[in-house]
Amino acid sequence: MTKLYGAIEAGGTKFVCAVSDENMNILKRIKIPTTIPEETMAEVFNFFDKNPVVAMGIGSFGPIDVNRSSETYGYITTTPKKGWANYDFLGNMKAHYDIPYAWTTDVNVAAYGELKKGSARGKSSCIYLTVGTGVGGGGVVNGKILEGFGHPEMGHIILRRHPEDTYEGNCPYHHDCLEGLCAGPAVEKRAGGVKAFDIPKDAKDWEIEAYYLAQACVDYTVILSPEKIIFGGGVSKQEQLFPLIRKSFKEQMNGYVKTPDLDDYIVHVELGDDAGITGCLLLAQEKA
Amino acid sequence: MTKLYGAIEAGGTKFVCAVSDENMNILKRIKIPTTIPEETMAEVFNFFDKNPVVAMGIGSFGPIDVNRSSETYGYITTTPKKGWANYDFLGNMKAHYDIPYAWTTDVNVAAYGELKKGSARGKSSCIYLTVGTGVGGGGVVNGKILEGFGHPEMGHIILRRHPEDTYEGNCPYHHDCLEGLCAGPAVEKRAGGVKAFDIPKDAKDWEIEAYYLAQACVDYTVILSPEKIIFGGGVSKQEQLFPLIRKSFKEQMNGYVKTPDLDDYIVHVELGDDAGITGCLLLAQEKA
Ligand SMILES: Nc1ncnc2c1ncn2[C@@H]1O[C@H](COP(=O)(O)OP(=O)(O)O)[C@@H](O)[C@H]1O
Ligand SMILES: Nc1ncnc2c1ncn2[C@@H]1O[C@H](COP(=O)(O)OP(=O)(O)O)[C@@H](O)[C@H]1O
Ligand SMILES: [Zn+2]
Ligand SMILES: [Zn+2]
Repeated sequence: MTKLYGAIEAGGTKFVCAVSDENMNILKRIKIPTTIPEETMAEVFNFFDKNPVVAMGIGSFGPIDVNRSSETYGYITTTPKKGWANYDFLGNMKAHYDIPYAWTTDVNVAAYGELKKGSARGKSSCIYLTVGTGVGGGGVVNGKILEGFGHPEMGHIILRRHPEDTYEGNCPYHHDCLEGLCAGPAVEKRAGGVKAFDIPKDAKDWEIEAYYLAQACVDYTVILSPEKIIFGGGVSKQEQLFPLIRKSFKEQMNGYVKTPDLDDYIVHVELGDDAGITGCLLLAQEKA
Repeated sequence: MTKLYGAIEAGGTKFVCAVSDENMNILKRIKIPTTIPEETMAEVFNFFDKNPVVAMGIGSFGPIDVNRSSETYGYITTTPKKGWANYDFLGNMKAHYDIPYAWTTDVNVAAYGELKKGSARGKSSCIYLTVGTGVGGGGVVNGKILEGFGHPEMGHIILRRHPEDTYEGNCPYHHDCLEGLCAGPAVEKRAGGVKAFDIPKDAKDWEIEAYYLAQACVDYTVILSPEKIIFGGGVSKQEQLFPLIRKSFKEQMNGYVKTPDLDDYIVHVELGDDAGITGCLLLAQEKA
């Protein structure tokens, strides 16, 4: 009998659970709305009870505790999402299934999926940045998931303001950090409440958005020197952003670091919605 | 007979060469002024001819090419330092001694030295930032030197300006990036030509300097989540900076990421001038 591997992409809106065979063919997959842990996790257990796996990769919304020496390793920590703060995600999984687990953030698993099977195939490093309800970033360095005392929170870098941007930003911690200026809700507030996909493609708003995202790319580049910077999330579906980001990146970097060709360097996620699940399954296989 | 290991810390002002035994005891060490390659390297070869080693670690001033798939791997690349641009450092070493080499930046070896033997002992990640004639940063992630398509250039992140700072910055590429605002020469120009160590300890200048260095620490923290941020270089000899950096870091981070205790997190280099040589010797041992 083939061994099966498990994946959970735990998002703030929905959970995706999947099982694959040893060749990474996804055999089953379900979506579960993220309500309260009792409800959502009951469905998760129900799925994996029916589809037993030998190892599992979990990429979770955060902040989460990834520090193995911490007492709350495996927990979702300070999320405002009702019921999930201080939830012992990994502990509850282990109580149900005594198998090896990989445990990291939703964006780290997406970065890993893209590195192994997506736009960064054959490379040993990349960054994955989602620009959606929030801005979150994950990465791979020397082939390994980027973690230290905790996991990255790349959406909260401090930015130099665009001279024509008067929007104050909406990050509850920093006001005008990257997330506070560039996530979907910020884009929509700057536009006076217009939905992001209704803002004209040639509006100044996208130039401002691209300026900030390019500035973030400059900082990521000089700090991490990744082989690829990959954008996902709802806002990055605005394809007109990519040429604008590359142009602004070039201006802001001003030739200091010789990066890979920008068309290959700053790119849209190749695996789309499968990046995270793919990363989870790969990590599960490595743990097994 | 004991095996000897070699180290070259190649700086823009001076080279330090050293040999150690297997227990990392430094047996010999010389300093060579950095003039032109023909002169400086002749002394390097003279030293290692007399002290043959089985493997060598080199930490060089940059920018350098660390990309193994590049044709100019092992070169110093675009430095303004006369004679050293496009110098095939590693190739010339290999032509003299057919041994294994580790090749990376001066700041990466210092980060590695501090990780293994200095302030970040027992950890698997750290950042080392030198604030001297320039600002340069290196790092270790998951126990390995931080590299991707190239090496970090952390001194060139883009900063939000301090509201009371009118100094325009002196980075030839970006004007007011971190290096352009915070390296020794910038500190001295902001102070109207006063030498950095003559600026009063309670001058506003140090508060401005600390604000920028703290901002850099925030960005490094949210991007890399290192277990330690270690400062070296001439400017960081101003000890009054450390409490100011920690205070400003706390304000700018505003509680978003729960870092290690700041007194342990933002620290002065423990190995001092030996950090780089120590890192080189450790890397040499691993290569042998
Ligand atoms: N096609 C689109 N164009 C621009 N913005 C979009 C688009 N789709 C979604 N968004 C924005 O992205 C946000 C949702 O992000 P998304 O990545 O889809 O989900 P989440 O971040 O919750 O996983 C919304 O705030 C919306 O403004
Ligand atoms: N004790 C000190 N206090 C403040 N600044 C210093 C001190 N010593 C050196 N500097 C500054 O540091 C710079 C030299 O940096 P240093 O790290 O010593 O050398 P380098 O960067 O060339 O290796 C000078 O520009 C000087 O302004
Ligand atoms: Zn923020
Ligand atoms: Zn610069």
